[in-house]
Amino acid sequence: MKHKVAILGSGNWGSAIAKVVGQNVRQHPELFEDEVRMYVYEELVDGERYLTSIINTNHENVKYLPGVKLPDNIVADPDPIRTAEDATLLIFVLPHQFVNSLCHKLKGKLHHRAKAISLIKGMAFNEKGPVLISSIIEDILGIDVSVLCGANIAKDVAWEHFSETTVGYKDKEVAQVWKQVFHSPSFNVGLVEDIAGVELCGALKNIIAVGLGMADGLGAGANTKAAIMRIGLAEMRRFAETFFKGVKQETFFESCGVADLIVTCFFGRNRKVAAAFVKQKKSFEQLEKEMLHGQKLQGTLTAQEVNTILKRANLTHRHNFTPCLLRLVMRKFPLMTTIYEVCFEKKDPHSLTDSGIASPHALALLQHPPRSGSV
Amino acid sequence: MKHKVAILGSGNWGSAIAKVVGQNVRQHPELFEDEVRMYVYEELVDGERYLTSIINTNHENVKYLPGVKLPDNIVADPDPIRTAEDATLLIFVLPHQFVNSLCHKLKGKLHHRAKAISLIKGMAFNEKGPVLISSIIEDILGIDVSVLCGANIAKDVAWEHFSETTVGYKDKEVAQVWKQVFHSPSFNVGLVEDIAGVELCGALKNIIAVGLGMADGLGAGANTKAAIMRIGLAEMRRFAETFFKGVKQETFFESCGVADLIVTCFFGRNRKVAAAFVKQKKSFEQLEKEMLHGQKLQGTLTAQEVNTILKRANLTHRHNFTPCLLRLVMRKFPLMTTIYEVCFEKKDPHSLTDSGIASPHALALLQHPPRSGSV
Repeated sequence: MKHKVAILGSGNWGSAIAKVVGQNVRQHPELFEDEVRMYVYEELVDGERYLTSIINTNHENVKYLPGVKLPDNIVADPDPIRTAEDATLLIFVLPHQFVNSLCHKLKGKLHHRAKAISLIKGMAFNEKGPVLISSIIEDILGIDVSVLCGANIAKDVAWEHFSETTVGYKDKEVAQVWKQVFHSPSFNVGLVEDIAGVELCGALKNIIAVGLGMADGLGAGANTKAAIMRIGLAEMRRFAETFFKGVKQETFFESCGVADLIVTCFFGRNRKVAAAFVKQKKSFEQLEKEMLHGQKLQGTLTAQEVNTILKRANLTHRHNFTPCLLRLVMRKFPLMTTIYEVCFEKKDPHSLTDSGIASPHALALLQHPPRSGSV
Repeated sequence: MKHKVAILGSGNWGSAIAKVVGQNVRQHPELFEDEVRMYVYEELVDGERYLTSIINTNHENVKYLPGVKLPDNIVADPDPIRTAEDATLLIFVLPHQFVNSLCHKLKGKLHHRAKAISLIKGMAFNEKGPVLISSIIEDILGIDVSVLCGANIAKDVAWEHFSETTVGYKDKEVAQVWKQVFHSPSFNVGLVEDIAGVELCGALKNIIAVGLGMADGLGAGANTKAAIMRIGLAEMRRFAETFFKGVKQETFFESCGVADLIVTCFFGRNRKVAAAFVKQKKSFEQLEKEMLHGQKLQGTLTAQEVNTILKRANLTHRHNFTPCLLRLVMRKFPLMTTIYEVCFEKKDPHSLTDSGIASPHALALLQHPPRSGSV
């Protein structure tokens, strides 16, 4: 039986990946049905035509990925249930605030062999710590969920510039199927058995990019910027290892780790806005209005969530932890904590580029990360 | 008994590190003698005064690190034997082509407790494979040799911009002494028990920076550049693991690994000249004349050495290897091999930014690096 692929989401990244997937399933007609349905949130473009109609007629998402032709086997559909119900492979690629309600709509209506992959960036959390978006999907729908994340600026992928990406999986056989869905000569898929590691990289890198932007704003030198990125990668790893079992060191050498961090730090909006924050001394709210048309910056949001998680991890272990140990948990993450404090507690950004982020104690910890579950 | 430190070399990096070390020994008068001798290759500056005399009077290396005041306990000496003979801690920081002859001069004339550290970038090789500069020093002088390498642009270190570095060691107690020699609030020292890993990072990163420059010259996008750096880091690791025992994955997360690669790729001359090579279609020789006053580019030189080593590793294992396996060894290092071929065998640089560097086979190997000694 052939696989049928559906894409849930049609923004910039969703449309770029639709091009990759549409071309790929055509390369393997023995494995995949030709048609790939894509759920498109319906909207009028220029008050005239519906976006789904434009995509299905002109084969271009003129609103979110203009200038890129989509293969004609990509069929836009405004109904998520109709898009998903007979698919065996579901690609989730929508903003993370819509995941919950979409999954509840789809619950009980999916193919019995359905499997999913999440391309969603972001992080949720509860009183116990961070919650993976992929596990929210898994919990609601009761299906296997892999993740895909990498150094993937959407328009470069759409233009078929050579890119790498990483699929995190639980089941190797399922991972091989996802590789066939995504892998091409210009979009190379690496596989790693570590869902938490891959997904957390995608969320946490944005915090580090904010730190790099602040360093930029202060006119920091190259050594300092490289140190911030290195310490950032080490803290990303420690965060993942602290809150999840089975996180692999190897993951952070993959495209989702070091490569995505480089792309985000050197070419992303988090860095640009954070540099303006330091130089112009305006609030992030103000800058989001001026620079992002009111959109929220991902990095500051995640910095806030991570800080809440670090504080709570402590609070929920109240009986084991003294106030002194609260400081220790924070100091295990000196960079992320300092970035949060600069963003939200008026801390002097210079504390990022002086030795505040790397006290000898913190450095010793960085060199000997705690093992999983050792908060 | 107090330690006495001597510095062998006084170029840009040697002078910057002299400032760090001179200040540090003053911070720990209980551990170190105040005076730090620095061997300076004697030369006339502007046909008037000797460089040693300028350094000892004005406390500035006007030739190689102008504008930076050195502490007055740094004493320039044109005689390497007088500089080194009563020191217990020797810092080697001179161009690698001078190491052999200097060590032979010093042989039999050192303090019986003398230990050394090498800050030298570069690589040697013999018929068996790569030879570490630190082991050349060790073999000639018969003393313990550690290494120091990191994301350290010399003038940023001299200006005390926050920087990190890595010391690779064999003996933990000795490493702690070196940490006291170098560590300061603005120059953070990480320790790792992996001399080969640390030293090879310093040599191999320059090849990757040449690759990044070529990608630049072709106008490659961010995803492609990040992929080149990621694959480069993976090949650096594989090269080290292939030729040396005890290389640690952790090393590549330290300042000498990912951070130094970032600094070299984004801010170094290897990238700039390689971009010109692709854009201007001139030879490297010509570009070295025009852009580097005739100095040799490190990255192309090392690419050549590594290629020789890869070919020889094969030749020396003639009885085990078929011609097909020769190709396999090269394909374990698709990026470094392609960079070499673009530099010296007129290969089209586009093979770097299309999928040539990451065939599925090569990628599979990248994900499962061979263990030590498995050439």
